Amino acid sequence: MRAASPTLVALLHGPDQPGLVAKVSGWIFERRGNILHADQHRDMEAGVFFQRVEWETAGDPVAEEDAFRAHAATLGMAARVSSSFHRARVALFVSKAGHCFHDLALRWKAGEFSSELVAVISNHPDLADAARGYGLAFHLVPVDERNKGAAESEQLALLRNLGVETVILARYMQVLSAGFLKSFGNPVINIHHSFLPAFAGGKPYHQAHARGVKLIGATAHYATAELDDGPIIQQDVARVTHRHSVEDLVRKGRDLEKIVLAQAVRWHLENRVLVYGRKTVVFD
Amino acid sequence: MRAASPTLVALLHGPDQPGLVAKVSGWIFERRGNILHADQHRDMEAGVFFQRVEWETAGDPVAEEDAFRAHAATLGMAARVSSSFHRARVALFVSKAGHCFHDLALRWKAGEFSSELVAVISNHPDLADAARGYGLAFHLVPVDERNKGAAESEQLALLRNLGVETVILARYMQVLSAGFLKSFGNPVINIHHSFLPAFAGGKPYHQAHARGVKLIGATAHYATAELDDGPIIQQDVARVTHRHSVEDLVRKGRDLEKIVLAQAVRWHLENRVLVYGRKTVVFD
Amino acid sequence: MRAASPTLVALLHGPDQPGLVAKVSGWIFERRGNILHADQHRDMEAGVFFQRVEWETAGDPVAEEDAFRAHAATLGMAARVSSSFHRARVALFVSKAGHCFHDLALRWKAGEFSSELVAVISNHPDLADAARGYGLAFHLVPVDERNKGAAESEQLALLRNLGVETVILARYMQVLSAGFLKSFGNPVINIHHSFLPAFAGGKPYHQAHARGVKLIGATAHYATAELDDGPIIQQDVARVTHRHSVEDLVRKGRDLEKIVLAQAVRWHLENRVLVYGRKTVVFD
Amino acid sequence: MRAASPTLVALLHGPDQPGLVAKVSGWIFERRGNILHADQHRDMEAGVFFQRVEWETAGDPVAEEDAFRAHAATLGMAARVSSSFHRARVALFVSKAGHCFHDLALRWKAGEFSSELVAVISNHPDLADAARGYGLAFHLVPVDERNKGAAESEQLALLRNLGVETVILARYMQVLSAGFLKSFGNPVINIHHSFLPAFAGGKPYHQAHARGVKLIGATAHYATAELDDGPIIQQDVARVTHRHSVEDLVRKGRDLEKIVLAQAVRWHLENRVLVYGRKTVVFD
Repeated sequence: MRAASPTLVALLHGPDQPGLVAKVSGWIFERRGNILHADQHRDMEAGVFFQRVEWETAGDPVAEEDAFRAHAATLGMAARVSSSFHRARVALFVSKAGHCFHDLALRWKAGEFSSELVAVISNHPDLADAARGYGLAFHLVPVDERNKGAAESEQLALLRNLGVETVILARYMQVLSAGFLKSFGNPVINIHHSFLPAFAGGKPYHQAHARGVKLIGATAHYATAELDDGPIIQQDVARVTHRHSVEDLVRKGRDLEKIVLAQAVRWHLENRVLVYGRKTVVFD
Repeated sequence: MRAASPTLVALLHGPDQPGLVAKVSGWIFERRGNILHADQHRDMEAGVFFQRVEWETAGDPVAEEDAFRAHAATLGMAARVSSSFHRARVALFVSKAGHCFHDLALRWKAGEFSSELVAVISNHPDLADAARGYGLAFHLVPVDERNKGAAESEQLALLRNLGVETVILARYMQVLSAGFLKSFGNPVINIHHSFLPAFAGGKPYHQAHARGVKLIGATAHYATAELDDGPIIQQDVARVTHRHSVEDLVRKGRDLEKIVLAQAVRWHLENRVLVYGRKTVVFD
Repeated sequence: MRAASPTLVALLHGPDQPGLVAKVSGWIFERRGNILHADQHRDMEAGVFFQRVEWETAGDPVAEEDAFRAHAATLGMAARVSSSFHRARVALFVSKAGHCFHDLALRWKAGEFSSELVAVISNHPDLADAARGYGLAFHLVPVDERNKGAAESEQLALLRNLGVETVILARYMQVLSAGFLKSFGNPVINIHHSFLPAFAGGKPYHQAHARGVKLIGATAHYATAELDDGPIIQQDVARVTHRHSVEDLVRKGRDLEKIVLAQAVRWHLENRVLVYGRKTVVFD
Repeated sequence: MRAASPTLVALLHGPDQPGLVAKVSGWIFERRGNILHADQHRDMEAGVFFQRVEWETAGDPVAEEDAFRAHAATLGMAARVSSSFHRARVALFVSKAGHCFHDLALRWKAGEFSSELVAVISNHPDLADAARGYGLAFHLVPVDERNKGAAESEQLALLRNLGVETVILARYMQVLSAGFLKSFGNPVINIHHSFLPAFAGGKPYHQAHARGVKLIGATAHYATAELDDGPIIQQDVARVTHRHSVEDLVRKGRDLEKIVLAQAVRWHLENRVLVYGRKTVVFD
């Protein structure tokens, strides 16, 4: 729940040292800010301090953002700060399967995510009508083996023109190249239909069925250059038995994928996720 | 994980006001303490601020405890402070059923709880040998309808003599009177074998079976004068079907009860639980 | 997964006696049927036998249905038989909240339920456009305190004209009268937004928040004349903490309600649910 | 729940064909048996039929066992039959960690498993006193790199002399050789402390922590010549966050391991598990 007055959220991390909590909260108090939430974590082994702090600011939000970043730098910490005035611009990548797409689109319509869904980009036309039905701009960018580079350039141009800050792969069935991820430079969230690291790669429900597991899973993670290996944001599982065919796993999996991806997107858009190394810190 | 140097944990609550985080962390920093964990919560509706803060202290732990309490008072906050030097003194109340008793006793032996299990008090002799097998003092205090008052007096005297600070009702099958709870004056944790508030009172698995629920539960809560109505610390559930008899529910429930009670005890002993009104704030 | 050839599903129950499994499976085998699935349950206390059996029939499905019912009667058992040729006719009752409505409508469009969704009936116009967007017939039947009887008559006439065999209350915010349920005479499935029997009646998330529970739940059940007291089909829970406001419980609850209701509807439409007394047997 | 009169349980599997349910249940009915439970499964792809059937027999249990096996053979099916008179003889293999050992020993004492726990075999002396405290025979068979073959021979001789029919590896920290498994020839159940196939091999909690997963798991499976690759009987998971150290994962994992292994042992001893290929059918 956002307060009515302008609030700022900062995600900080850097080398641990005594007094960080005091120096951050003291700075905010001196400038007549009011801390709504503060959560911190120390990785004892690595000696790293992480913090998420959310406060009502008495000053101009943009000026306070800059001032806070500068203050964090004096403490040796990297800070990502964003204001409740800012509504992140998000694009969905989809292919043919509609379950995650519909789920996210309906949540946006219901106001669950305080951000703008500015584009749906797909390599297939299947969801075009549904997207337009939700009042969403739909962009068809077909991809095949020969035109992959050109298609990614077209996608990148779209994202750039639309000022997209986060991409969500809602069962988009193409692997984005390392070059794409680097050029885009902003977070890309993917939903993988297994409990990673089990069953990475293609057809994970077939793999799970062949192995005879008693639970199937889904994993939302940031996409990185290494397939299905990025920092995990959220995971969940559902129980299956010998009675379930591959088709049953696929059907049950759709519900898992929707819930897990929506939760990851919500955390990300609320600035609750800090990536470090191959892992995430989620301040929930 | 406790740090090697002496640490203090404070649980605070009081009327919300700007600057509380800064004033608490600033005080600790000034006295050269180092915050290991800090977690806070604001109840927006009630305007109450809650905090748990754990720090390494550079001074004498006992003196710092007192000083912190005094500082908290200047902020209008009630504070419970305890030091890592202090090992809480705990008593288990049991009857005939041994599952929670064995589970807790084995966890104590394994070092999961940093506290002293100083007595096992029972109204039946059934678990006497097992208690002694674990090296625990066993006290038989039989209870029947006519001697209940006398029995409670005997129990209270035992607790007082042993300096007991927390009582755990590990499937103790007697209701403690309001007078007992008031005289004891310290926390009493109970495990109820249902998902409260469903199926309060006696024979909850029979009630659950008769109602045809698809999940059974267990609830750990602080005992209060009103039966099964105290602040809830932890709950969990397990799936059941029409195939399960009452006996099956009882058997499955034992596993639930063990896990839920052990988790509640752990949180309580790590000073993670703040009670307010009929609820708890659990800083996990 | 239905087989390609016509299959029949029978749900049987009656007084237990030796040989029931043999007499049912023997009858099917003699008529050259092939059992695909068979599942049975004996309630030992009540002495009742329950069975679900699904088989490919070599004869005319309609004739076989009748013949099977007659055979079951000779064994003293009540039988509900339905053929894979039959597509049940279903109506959704909704009010303003759209989450369960959209979830079910999308599942129908995706082919998850082998049945016909023939009407959406609402006491508010809010979901009219969305229903039509899915190609569904939308009927507005406003209800207020004075016209409740007339409104129910209009609803019943609609259901009768459309040949509706199952009604699903997808967060319909009116209580259906005992008279309505009796006149309709077919199953009515409701989703209640709590873990019944806890928090029956109105505003269950407010009740749950006030009580400080650590899990919230949802319950799909058959509607009966007694509010929130009908046989439970499915239940599930989600973890909450002191950080969650009532609004958060409502939001988290929506996901629970969707999953629990969809599962109950699926089991019901696949003829997997037998009601007896206040309970259900679910052959999943 | 076993009935008071002698009951038989058969686990059958073989090529699917019409009439199998009728031919099995008919045979039992003709011999005046009374089926208590029957559950079957067809693997549509592989064309294999699986059945578990439990019945009260009117005849001599031993004779009926043989007669049933012969009948199953005429149907082309392999059958494992056992009588409620038979109490399976079980051995536990342990090392230093006591949590699964205590959990299982207490369940045996509580009568949860209708079978005989005839030996505890360990490569370390740590649990000797605890085993004797439970009245269990403890056998120390030290294992090091050079004597592994001799140690396995000693273990096999013990198992043979004691007539052991099932071995449970309750966090036994040695890999049993393919030769041992072949010589023993009976089921060996292992608990692996991860959600297999993720994190097979050594130090799975360290692997899980390094990967930053949000759920940890445990897997009970039959041991085969390939490490951590045998048919899975049961799995479960628990939620973890960035706050959990490796030590926390180990502690939380202990509870998972106990529950998962106990459930697998229970199903196995109740003759509910059929292995085929790399998978299990669990008739629960």
